[in-house]
Amino acid sequence: MASLRTRRAFRRLEVEARRQQLLETGARLFTERGYEDVSMSEVAAAAGISKGLLYHYFPGKRAFFAATLEAAAQELRALTVTDPDLPALEQLTAAVDAYLGWIEAHSESYARLLHSAGALADVASLVQRVRDETAERIVAGLGGDEPSPALRCAVHGWLWFMDGACLQWLQAGREPPRERLRELLVGTLAAAAGLAV
Amino acid sequence: MASLRTRRAFRRLEVEARRQQLLETGARLFTERGYEDVSMSEVAAAAGISKGLLYHYFPGKRAFFAATLEAAAQELRALTVTDPDLPALEQLTAAVDAYLGWIEAHSESYARLLHSAGALADVASLVQRVRDETAERIVAGLGGDEPSPALRCAVHGWLWFMDGACLQWLQAGREPPRERLRELLVGTLAAAAGLAV
Repeated sequence: MASLRTRRAFRRLEVEARRQQLLETGARLFTERGYEDVSMSEVAAAAGISKGLLYHYFPGKRAFFAATLEAAAQELRALTVTDPDLPALEQLTAAVDAYLGWIEAHSESYARLLHSAGALADVASLVQRVRDETAERIVAGLGGDEPSPALRCAVHGWLWFMDGACLQWLQAGREPPRERLRELLVGTLAAAAGLAV
Repeated sequence: MASLRTRRAFRRLEVEARRQQLLETGARLFTERGYEDVSMSEVAAAAGISKGLLYHYFPGKRAFFAATLEAAAQELRALTVTDPDLPALEQLTAAVDAYLGWIEAHSESYARLLHSAGALADVASLVQRVRDETAERIVAGLGGDEPSPALRCAVHGWLWFMDGACLQWLQAGREPPRERLRELLVGTLAAAAGLAV
């Protein structure tokens, strides 16, 4: 009985590890060539499994694509979680730095995600959901129990600012240096929130 | 001969007026129901002309749609042109105010445009072109002959800030009041540009 339970637990781990591996393979292929040009057969071949087994994990290409996006969003969220006991400015600086680090490591996915947001409803709603969740976290941190409408505008605006500034940064060959960009981002939120209070 | 020239000039005016009327009809229908759900037959019927005549003005639905977007972009550009002899802050305030006025008057088109940017390559490239042109104007005004990479990031970021803040503003039932939002927008650009110099 214990042995059966152990085998089941092991099997669950195997399934989860395989799922992760498939998501990574998918993220790489979708990033390299775009959603339209990647087939489920190619994903299966690249992952070294049968197409049937791939469909056992994900019911279709659209669901598979959505899962790769969801995994990226979770990774980003986990990276930007900060220690609530630190001073607000330190938390913000750490989160912005983690965000920039993720963009540096995934610059192609990032640019493709933003440029194609809307091309696929999944991407657009994911980008919007990540922004909304992040905005809520920041607004709660800055505005206490009753944030003003102006503060909400400032924080939502700033999350867009981040993406606009980061795309320009990538396009300009990562100039200015990352630390300089981080200062600009953090300082702009501080200024906008100050104006909105 | 003079009479023929007059008739030709009159005919050109008629053609241009008809084209404008068709663009306005198209903009209204595309805004109300979205690109996919509007047919050229409907546009012709709504404008009170034959489908054949509509195709005489625009070779296809895609080209017609692109022309309606181009007309909106030109309208927006004309509205936000400012008097270069005024102080920079006054010019900025006037341009931001004109932008907000346009958004108030076309709130549905505006939200649809941004939410669907990417869904159609035409929309995405138009939004990007308008941002790039506007960024160039602002960077030139702020940065003189040799704008720094940080200033470019700040200005591009701020144009995204505008749209993020304005979408949030519309979603919150136009709260805070427009003057307050304008102050936030203008102040944030001033702060971001100051941080970037």
